Amino acid sequence: MKVKELMDKKFIVVGPDEDLDEVSEKMETHKRFTIPVVDEKRRLIGWITSLNVIRGLREGKKRVSEIMHIPEEIIHVHENDPARLAVLEISKHKVVNLPVLDDEGVIVGIVRALDIVKTLSSLYEIKVYKIFEAMSQELKGISWDELMEAAAIITRRRTGERITAEEYEERIKKSTFGEAIWATGGLEKFFVGLIAIGELVIARKVARARK
Amino acid sequence: MKVKELMDKKFIVVGPDEDLDEVSEKMETHKRFTIPVVDEKRRLIGWITSLNVIRGLREGKKRVSEIMHIPEEIIHVHENDPARLAVLEISKHKVVNLPVLDDEGVIVGIVRALDIVKTLSSLYEIKVYKIFEAMSQELKGISWDELMEAAAIITRRRTGERITAEEYEERIKKSTFGEAIWATGGLEKFFVGLIAIGELVIARKVARARK
Repeated sequence: MKVKELMDKKFIVVGPDEDLDEVSEKMETHKRFTIPVVDEKRRLIGWITSLNVIRGLREGKKRVSEIMHIPEEIIHVHENDPARLAVLEISKHKVVNLPVLDDEGVIVGIVRALDIVKTLSSLYEIKVYKIFEAMSQELKGISWDELMEAAAIITRRRTGERITAEEYEERIKKSTFGEAIWATGGLEKFFVGLIAIGELVIARKVARARK
Repeated sequence: MKVKELMDKKFIVVGPDEDLDEVSEKMETHKRFTIPVVDEKRRLIGWITSLNVIRGLREGKKRVSEIMHIPEEIIHVHENDPARLAVLEISKHKVVNLPVLDDEGVIVGIVRALDIVKTLSSLYEIKVYKIFEAMSQELKGISWDELMEAAAIITRRRTGERITAEEYEERIKKSTFGEAIWATGGLEKFFVGLIAIGELVIARKVARARK
């Protein structure tokens, strides 16, 4: 996934000569805490936040150019950078919005912390059931019931909890990947549990074939 | 994981009677786009953003109480809510900061979109190598080399790419869980690949035992 697939292409811009009062109204109307400043070719030449505007107004400044951050101070990414880089930059520099530039320095989008929260959290919201379904399709010759039975056995072995195959099935219908990670104590442990289940069903399949 | 484990306990507050000019300076100094308004017992009674302040100053308002959002308008979570709920609320209501209350309505923390980006993205940054290490420890009687060999075979089968066990090992040392998910086309597919690898090493182990 590239930055251009993650970025928001709808955003407002201001020019360096715009009046601060008018810009402050624009920020309010569009509910934006930050706005890119561009030249006539939409190249990124500055960046302002609502906090810069507040200070500017208090100090009697009149134009965007008097308060804007200069390009050297603006954290940005390129549209063809990996999406991961945008996430790391936002996390590292603690910026809520990150401008995206093309080869000409034109601003083509904005990556927002809020959009990243949405994208990342959607992964966490995948039902554990879906992962077992994929596993079931992959493991030929093993039925869904056999898989649930193995899962219940592994859970009993590891946690001491007396859980049946039916209860296990009910649980994974409700629980999400995110919850499972927290419950098992981390991504690796979650996968190890799944691998243990896979190993058990395969061992049982082999034992059956030998009979 | 609960909200109280995710929230930031360091935050600034303002009172309803504070002067808007002074509050605007406070926001700037602490670089905060939003600030909770509290009473003398630190109960949450309002919420202001830098955009509300800009408007207030323009309209000649003097006090925080004249511009603040009332409690009914403030999206918030309880300290004992699951962390997942805070993530969903931020995502749904598009708020960059979310106040956390205790049973008495006292504000005890703030969940920030930026902190969530950091927490969620750290999961994505886990090296695939770590997952294979955990898998290797789980699968008794199978060596690391056998595991890498099986992984290379499965990759060749699925993608047609001619990759050796050594190259596979090099690759997973560098690549992260996040990259692997994007590369394989989703969490389920990534996991199915792991299961296929697990199945192959187990089949080979069984075949060896039969000899």
